[in-house]
Amino acid sequence: MRNIGILGSTGSIGTQALDVIRNNSNLFNVVALSGNNNIKLLEKQALEFKPDIVAVFDRANANILRDKLKPFNIKVFSGLDGLIEMAKYESIELLLTSVVGMIGLKPTLAAIESGKDIALANKETLVTAGSIVMNKAKEHNVSVIPVDSEHSAIFQSITSKESKEISKIILTASGGPFRNKEKSDLLNISSREALKHPNWSMGRKISIDSSTLMNKGLEVIEAKWLFDINLNDIEVIVHPQSIIHSMVEYIDGSIIAQLGVSDMRIPIQYALSYPKRISNNIKKLNLIEVSNLTFEKPDLTTFPCLKLAYRASEEEGTIPSVLNAANEVLVDMFLKDKIGFYDIPNTIETVLDKHKNICDPTLDEILYSDNWARNKAIELLKF
Amino acid sequence: MRNIGILGSTGSIGTQALDVIRNNSNLFNVVALSGNNNIKLLEKQALEFKPDIVAVFDRANANILRDKLKPFNIKVFSGLDGLIEMAKYESIELLLTSVVGMIGLKPTLAAIESGKDIALANKETLVTAGSIVMNKAKEHNVSVIPVDSEHSAIFQSITSKESKEISKIILTASGGPFRNKEKSDLLNISSREALKHPNWSMGRKISIDSSTLMNKGLEVIEAKWLFDINLNDIEVIVHPQSIIHSMVEYIDGSIIAQLGVSDMRIPIQYALSYPKRISNNIKKLNLIEVSNLTFEKPDLTTFPCLKLAYRASEEEGTIPSVLNAANEVLVDMFLKDKIGFYDIPNTIETVLDKHKNICDPTLDEILYSDNWARNKAIELLKF
Repeated sequence: MRNIGILGSTGSIGTQALDVIRNNSNLFNVVALSGNNNIKLLEKQALEFKPDIVAVFDRANANILRDKLKPFNIKVFSGLDGLIEMAKYESIELLLTSVVGMIGLKPTLAAIESGKDIALANKETLVTAGSIVMNKAKEHNVSVIPVDSEHSAIFQSITSKESKEISKIILTASGGPFRNKEKSDLLNISSREALKHPNWSMGRKISIDSSTLMNKGLEVIEAKWLFDINLNDIEVIVHPQSIIHSMVEYIDGSIIAQLGVSDMRIPIQYALSYPKRISNNIKKLNLIEVSNLTFEKPDLTTFPCLKLAYRASEEEGTIPSVLNAANEVLVDMFLKDKIGFYDIPNTIETVLDKHKNICDPTLDEILYSDNWARNKAIELLKF
Repeated sequence: MRNIGILGSTGSIGTQALDVIRNNSNLFNVVALSGNNNIKLLEKQALEFKPDIVAVFDRANANILRDKLKPFNIKVFSGLDGLIEMAKYESIELLLTSVVGMIGLKPTLAAIESGKDIALANKETLVTAGSIVMNKAKEHNVSVIPVDSEHSAIFQSITSKESKEISKIILTASGGPFRNKEKSDLLNISSREALKHPNWSMGRKISIDSSTLMNKGLEVIEAKWLFDINLNDIEVIVHPQSIIHSMVEYIDGSIIAQLGVSDMRIPIQYALSYPKRISNNIKKLNLIEVSNLTFEKPDLTTFPCLKLAYRASEEEGTIPSVLNAANEVLVDMFLKDKIGFYDIPNTIETVLDKHKNICDPTLDEILYSDNWARNKAIELLKF
């Protein structure tokens, strides 16, 4: 029995994780959950999985839930303090951080400091504070197990304990809905078109990130920290079928790859069951049906966001946080059809240029830079 | 420094292994070599690598070499006894068994009994005596590391120590030079056409085996023993580009695969350096250049040898030895243009039908069945 906490249980990753746990109730025990707005679902989850504690960021929502869960002896915490308290909860052995946004950062760090293993699905954790988080994890002898399909693939393809035996990480990218388009085709594209991802069913923000390739750029930044690898040794290859989820090249020329169907429950389950593998009823990959896997170079002219992410990763400091924050604001505006597709990379570039990078930033400096970048992006577009 | 012995150093695998060793003289030390007919090359190798002992099967050849190597204090053994003596030689830590044919069997077993790890490139060892060999290896706590590119790929893709986590082994096959042909196209095919393998440069016997898919069938038999897996859980997929060298499917739906260029020095090197990986100057795989990987079902009607190998593997006992021996004789006849392409599977099938299977055979029963099958194949074709 492994005691699991889920930071952000009502989102896409959180609900799929609970699916996995529901199917393996002999292996996993939910001891803590957290949510924010969807308290109806959070209540339902709490009643089904009977955790000891539930945390809700919004205090009003927390109060509503507290009354409902009182009869079942489930404690309800609130605010950021409540999330942190929940993440540190004694009984948790593995914390799945599937909350979206910067809000995940402090609770994740608190969990690491409490010696809990992390199943990491919160992008911001490594993009903005990779150095701090990975150092803390090392210090507290904590495993950080990636949930993202690409990073999970790399994690599964690292068969050697000697990192010097790895020559390259090859991150695969579907190329998004605009693969093979040119810049001129995309100048007036709408958010509706950008939301049509060819292979994965995902949230709106990540679908846009996938259409700009920023998604892949953020994954490059994460991969650098997660696998402690030189940025120059991370290659992005466009693989439209999304069957090979990523690869590791070794110094002897061997490449180890992880393949599978596009179902997030596979990497989620692996992060929960690691180092063991457990069976499931997900349809297996049939390579004869797929029949064809193709590979292309990413088009950095049409998709400058990927180049910007490499730049941010290279410069380190608070620049990756600025990239991420500006992107989040701009994607939100694009989703509301207030700006065009190329306003995203163009504005990000200007924000990066204007940012005074802080080397080896503290957590507060990271949060400050995040905030600065959001304001700067809005200011630049005069909203 | 790892002390290496090479049983069959003058063949294709042996010479490539010496290439690897030459480029890593700080890691590997050759202490024993063996050969048979090509004593010119064996002498050259002995003078370069200065092993303590050399073994030559042919006694006349051994005598010639003994005189030449005497001044260098290199002992020369002869006959099967000599090969066995060499395989057991005290200083050897890892024995590469790259000799071709049944002659490799007894020396390999002797090496295992002496506690030496085996880098296995002799097909007959597992095809004919898989049960005996793997049990002995277990008993003597000896690692059997495959050299064949497919088995090496599987070996490298087994990331779990729990064999119950493996659901399937997927052996890839190039499909050989006659992929997409029909039976009627191949009735009058010549050996010259069958020798044109699309991806690998190999010996004549193995090239024909590749054109009939018997090569893949023998690999299925080997894989069953090597990885202790149920025959029904071994799938053959035709992958004409030979980039994915084989795969392992896990119970959670993840597939781990090994990819690389078609250069035997990569798996040979891995077998010598295992569990470490070492660098080399072999051109790395460029997936963007390759651009396309395809997968097809094998055509068992056009290539019945694969089906026959599954049958032999299912029946176990001496049947796999009979399949292998009959095939060897028939391929030799086909290479001499004495028989047609389909005389190979047709005759093998008759020989299998006529064989009285011996369950849990001894080594002598295996050798007897091998001999019986050779004679029977010739008798059936009235040569």
